[in-house]
Amino acid sequence: MSIAKQNQDTDMMASAQESDRLDPLKDYRPRFTLPEGVIYLDGNSLGVLPAGLSDRMSDVIERQWGERLVRGWNDAGWIDLPSQVAGKIAALVGAGANCVTVGDSTSINVFKVLSAALSLRPDRRVILSDRNNFPTDLYVADGLTRLLGQGYELKLATADTMEEAVDETVVAVLLTEVDYRTGERYDMEAMTRHIHGRGALAIWDLCHSAGAFPVHLDAAGADFAIGCGYKYLNGGPGAPAFLYVAERHLNDVAPALSGWMGHDAPFAFTTDYRPADGIGRMKVGTPPILSLSALNIALDAFEGVDMALVRQKSQELCDRFIAEVEHRCPELELVTPRVREQRGSQVSFRHPEGYAIMQALIANGVIGDFRAPDILRFGMTPLYLRHTDIVAAAEILERVLRQKLWDREEYRTRAKVT
Amino acid sequence: MSIAKQNQDTDMMASAQESDRLDPLKDYRPRFTLPEGVIYLDGNSLGVLPAGLSDRMSDVIERQWGERLVRGWNDAGWIDLPSQVAGKIAALVGAGANCVTVGDSTSINVFKVLSAALSLRPDRRVILSDRNNFPTDLYVADGLTRLLGQGYELKLATADTMEEAVDETVVAVLLTEVDYRTGERYDMEAMTRHIHGRGALAIWDLCHSAGAFPVHLDAAGADFAIGCGYKYLNGGPGAPAFLYVAERHLNDVAPALSGWMGHDAPFAFTTDYRPADGIGRMKVGTPPILSLSALNIALDAFEGVDMALVRQKSQELCDRFIAEVEHRCPELELVTPRVREQRGSQVSFRHPEGYAIMQALIANGVIGDFRAPDILRFGMTPLYLRHTDIVAAAEILERVLRQKLWDREEYRTRAKVT
Repeated sequence: MSIAKQNQDTDMMASAQESDRLDPLKDYRPRFTLPEGVIYLDGNSLGVLPAGLSDRMSDVIERQWGERLVRGWNDAGWIDLPSQVAGKIAALVGAGANCVTVGDSTSINVFKVLSAALSLRPDRRVILSDRNNFPTDLYVADGLTRLLGQGYELKLATADTMEEAVDETVVAVLLTEVDYRTGERYDMEAMTRHIHGRGALAIWDLCHSAGAFPVHLDAAGADFAIGCGYKYLNGGPGAPAFLYVAERHLNDVAPALSGWMGHDAPFAFTTDYRPADGIGRMKVGTPPILSLSALNIALDAFEGVDMALVRQKSQELCDRFIAEVEHRCPELELVTPRVREQRGSQVSFRHPEGYAIMQALIANGVIGDFRAPDILRFGMTPLYLRHTDIVAAAEILERVLRQKLWDREEYRTRAKVT
Repeated sequence: MSIAKQNQDTDMMASAQESDRLDPLKDYRPRFTLPEGVIYLDGNSLGVLPAGLSDRMSDVIERQWGERLVRGWNDAGWIDLPSQVAGKIAALVGAGANCVTVGDSTSINVFKVLSAALSLRPDRRVILSDRNNFPTDLYVADGLTRLLGQGYELKLATADTMEEAVDETVVAVLLTEVDYRTGERYDMEAMTRHIHGRGALAIWDLCHSAGAFPVHLDAAGADFAIGCGYKYLNGGPGAPAFLYVAERHLNDVAPALSGWMGHDAPFAFTTDYRPADGIGRMKVGTPPILSLSALNIALDAFEGVDMALVRQKSQELCDRFIAEVEHRCPELELVTPRVREQRGSQVSFRHPEGYAIMQALIANGVIGDFRAPDILRFGMTPLYLRHTDIVAAAEILERVLRQKLWDREEYRTRAKVT
């Protein structure tokens, strides 16, 4: 290594140390359990374990379930747990607490909001989405149109062509605010306004937004939203998802998945379905208390957190990572927008050997992930990442590339889950 | 108390003690955690906590999630957890392991199998069910028909009129094998044969069957089934549900809820949906690892258990409870069939003050539950209940009635969950 480069590297680390010292969020890091020897840049795929969650879950299991047994539904407040969790999430996504509910997977919730949207505009038949949307959104939309037949169809555009694709046939536009591969971000407010101008409904997937930066669903005029509990919200693998319905639609939507928990009086056990008032009608089956409890506990890590500071630090971490990687690894091509407003809380690079590089990087203590066909993806989670982690991660990435540590057969063998 | 009655009571307890001594299932009781001072006759609503589950869940949370983080999907086998759990349940319900999958709530699974059934018989439009079926089955079926329109409808019959109601318009008959209120049981094999004879499909809800007695889905020729993880399977409050598709239909059904986990290659992230081969296509979203892990651990309590012995003891417990209660509490009206083959694993009585009586009973250490309008329900779970528990429970019920312990305002106030 040249002396000039060595000096530059030293400067970069010194700058990161200074940023950590001044970091207004640094006191939140102990709210999370971080394994030794790992720099975790994959909180956008699975959030880390919040500190104390395991003990609190033991209490849920041993005391609430084990001792109270079926009485837990009343005693331990299980029946109100979906509302309790919803309230915490609502605060993070700029929604009235009465507009959010929690339960089921993101995919199921996509189905719920799409079918609810269709029930509001029976005269239109096209669901519009982004070709680069996360596949499950497209698959679920496609499945719904196939189920309905009668001219319903899913049409796809790209970010560039989206605005003009919203025509008078479109009932709802289903967009993920932040692209899961590139990190590119839609302007939710402007796009919602445009969609409304064409007489359609705006459905926002917040999987890569909720907990990552401030979201303002009510203010943006969104009609529906869904999002994931296990990424930036740290609810644990496969945590329950959430769903938002704008207040103006609450009592007009007809739930297609009409289960007993969405009934106006579930314990009357009547034969006829009568939807609950408001957001309650979007609930379906018995709430999954163990996983909901974990999400409920995890969300306490956001207590007192100023999401504007999270956004500020996220952008600094992204900028720093881009600068570090471009300086050290010019063979990686940045695919995330450089302009702060145009991206979420991740940085992605492209490389033809992306899969093997990511496996080698993980083996060397930096966990990001790979998205087909060639994307190395790094998520920034300001509550538990330090500026110095970013520099250290870039150093290791540089070493993986310089020393060709990725060039091994074992790193080319695709795992079941990538 | 008369000396004659006292002697009779002593005899009944002595007989129960002798049955416990000879009980071939007595060694399974330590597989469960039972709170002190409680006789739990509500395992048909929420199963008890299996011993060791809490520690094993701590390992899932701390080691699999906390330390392995996103690597747990491969390392800890999370991605295969639905299949693993499905294999254990398949063995309990007489199904090929490749015909069962696990995930989502029972209500969501009702929607999945109903829509799958409709996809097999596009020429018929009527879903038939039992007016006394558990309401969520009816609500979900109704919601699906409203979503589809085009003449689809839900028709209801009763056990008495069910056979003749299966006419040439019926695409699928959705029945819960055991009535949640009365405990009355359909003859699955005979009814399935009859349904097939009329060209319709048979969907069985096993919420009150799986884990309660031997079920033979394949042998009975069932087309589809669903069931609950949190009752007799002891998977914890709101545990994931399961779903069965007969092998002959596996590759013909079109999933209406077509999420990424049901895709043939979920990690190829392609735009187009292509259903997985076989039962995999019935999966939808990201599997709920924490609650699936709890269910997985809970199912180990069935390892080595002979379900025929479970059925035998269940019937003995039911008979004993009926005899005890009828002897002690003649004002309670039995609503469960006396004939063993015609009932599941519960005993229900009717009383106009049923709600208050059940609250008083619970306050006195016997947990059963109440079902509107007037049913006192008692579930029999042979792996952890003793014959002497049944006698003791009946004694306490007698005391509640004789001393009118139920006649208090607090016991009449309905809780949110009954």
